[in-house]
Amino acid sequence: CCSQDIDHILETQSALAVDLGGTNLRVAIVSMKGKVLKKFTQPNPKTYEERIELILSMCKQAIAEAIRLNCRILGVGVSTGGRVNPQDGVVLDSTKLINEWSGVDLRAPVSHALHLPVWVDNDGNCAALAEKKFGHGKGVENFVTVITGTGIGGGIIQHGELIHGSTFCAAELGHIQVSLDGPECSCGSQGCIEAFSSGLALQREAKRLHDDDVLLVDGMSVNNKEQVSAVHLINAAHHGNPKAKAVLHTAGTALGVGIVNILHTVNPSLVILSGILAQHYEGPVQQVIGRRALSSTRDVKVVTSDLEEPALLGAASMVLDYATRRIY
Amino acid sequence: CCSQDIDHILETQSALAVDLGGTNLRVAIVSMKGKVLKKFTQPNPKTYEERIELILSMCKQAIAEAIRLNCRILGVGVSTGGRVNPQDGVVLDSTKLINEWSGVDLRAPVSHALHLPVWVDNDGNCAALAEKKFGHGKGVENFVTVITGTGIGGGIIQHGELIHGSTFCAAELGHIQVSLDGPECSCGSQGCIEAFSSGLALQREAKRLHDDDVLLVDGMSVNNKEQVSAVHLINAAHHGNPKAKAVLHTAGTALGVGIVNILHTVNPSLVILSGILAQHYEGPVQQVIGRRALSSTRDVKVVTSDLEEPALLGAASMVLDYATRRIY
Ligand SMILES: [Ca+2]
Ligand SMILES: [Ca+2]
Ligand SMILES: [Zn+2]
Ligand SMILES: [Zn+2]
Repeated sequence: CCSQDIDHILETQSALAVDLGGTNLRVAIVSMKGKVLKKFTQPNPKTYEERIELILSMCKQAIAEAIRLNCRILGVGVSTGGRVNPQDGVVLDSTKLINEWSGVDLRAPVSHALHLPVWVDNDGNCAALAEKKFGHGKGVENFVTVITGTGIGGGIIQHGELIHGSTFCAAELGHIQVSLDGPECSCGSQGCIEAFSSGLALQREAKRLHDDDVLLVDGMSVNNKEQVSAVHLINAAHHGNPKAKAVLHTAGTALGVGIVNILHTVNPSLVILSGILAQHYEGPVQQVIGRRALSSTRDVKVVTSDLEEPALLGAASMVLDYATRRIY
Repeated sequence: CCSQDIDHILETQSALAVDLGGTNLRVAIVSMKGKVLKKFTQPNPKTYEERIELILSMCKQAIAEAIRLNCRILGVGVSTGGRVNPQDGVVLDSTKLINEWSGVDLRAPVSHALHLPVWVDNDGNCAALAEKKFGHGKGVENFVTVITGTGIGGGIIQHGELIHGSTFCAAELGHIQVSLDGPECSCGSQGCIEAFSSGLALQREAKRLHDDDVLLVDGMSVNNKEQVSAVHLINAAHHGNPKAKAVLHTAGTALGVGIVNILHTVNPSLVILSGILAQHYEGPVQQVIGRRALSSTRDVKVVTSDLEEPALLGAASMVLDYATRRIY
């Protein structure tokens, strides 16, 4: 849509996509082809009232922009951290990163204020929907997305549909446990792949090595204002630091074993890694699958996502798929 | 069927159920209500030819018996160890316990010889089907069966249907891995729940303790001809042997963590434990879920199966459900 050479009505159909993360609140206009036509970003407010108000005002701003761009907005899709009942459009539990965000009906106020249909799902599930419509998951019946960012999340597609589970808690892949003891996890358990392999876990280990003065090797420095992070750990490993290498080896093994467990449970034909650490983990995960998966599941393809905005695109895909299902 | 007071035609409808295990080959007549009306058992032959021949002769014997009992046989359901393509009725890979049983088309020869429709699935999946039709899984949309016997197997029901996965390898629950190292498993990997918690794993540990002369406590004996087994280990723990207790604690924890991983992947509302060790593990699994599962998945019910013949009943259920779907 929105360019002179397009004349078909279908191509002017667009979605408003809302992404509620621990840090930012983002609203975008996304075209039927998965192009982010316009994006608005604000810090995610700390209270329910401010947050709802900001969602509505950013959406109204985006709708005005859509009119200017000659896009027809079919509805609003919301991706949020936490556990979501997508049938009712309700956030059941929030993650620790978003305050005042449990038992929140998102559909009613947004739909009422904007006069548009509203769909909501959690960020991991939205990432899987994005892959299905716009990414490596196109046309794939059974696949899994594992997002390795600050935390670890994911989504599972079976027979072309998301698995939500009996309490909308399926695909909590970060809390697959690969050690009977192992590091403590934010969820209260231990040995979760999030506690071994997430950005926060790598940062924890980087800090531990830095406190022991064994992180930095020749040619590396951390200035005082800079937070020690996963990047320093990966850098140190590349520079030959054996302790950093050992930490990353364990992190890759843990993530790989977690993914082997997914293979032995739902047996997908494709695993898509996304998030900031995806590229880094692709090789280690493939190696662990080769060593530890049942031979009949080993043909699974493991790839790194090439979507830039999985949460926004997934939020948009709910609108683009479900709204047009109703209309046509 | 088969009793004087039943007059409705539906109740004379029955299935032939075939169960191919590592030791025995069994054929049964199973009524629409899940009653095993007659059962034939033979040792499972070691070669493909003998096995197919015995399946056919036992089925013919059962059909003759069904006529005598005034049952109408709708078809043949086969439960077998190994990986199965149920669409084609083909055993893709066998378990190590059944020789010459890979790439075997079961449907064509059985259907051709008996002039009956034939369905095939693996034993774990059949156990889940049995629970769905006749057991605790009746009317439950999303549940999982975990069978703890000599090995560990299982089946997953989502939206009332089995999950088979992209290469018919879903629900290989015994090879969920809960340790990055851990005991070696028959599958070639390590840390699998089968290597921690199966009957064979407990027997391995019982033998190890017995070899070190620390298994038996006052009031226990193993005579020379007897194999040391899981039973002795459980007995020793009940008699207060701390080493036996520690082994069982680890086994229960491992199984529990494996099941937590299933909860965080497909989020069932019910977990049914079956197999000889089910009763023993019910408590430990519930405890581990209480400690280690995400709070939103903890409401899952964990029960022990009360079906006596899950494999045979599951094999029969394919016939009773699918044959009548076609006919009516
Ligand atoms: Ca998820
Ligand atoms: Ca199975
Ligand atoms: Zn966790
Ligand atoms: Zn294994």
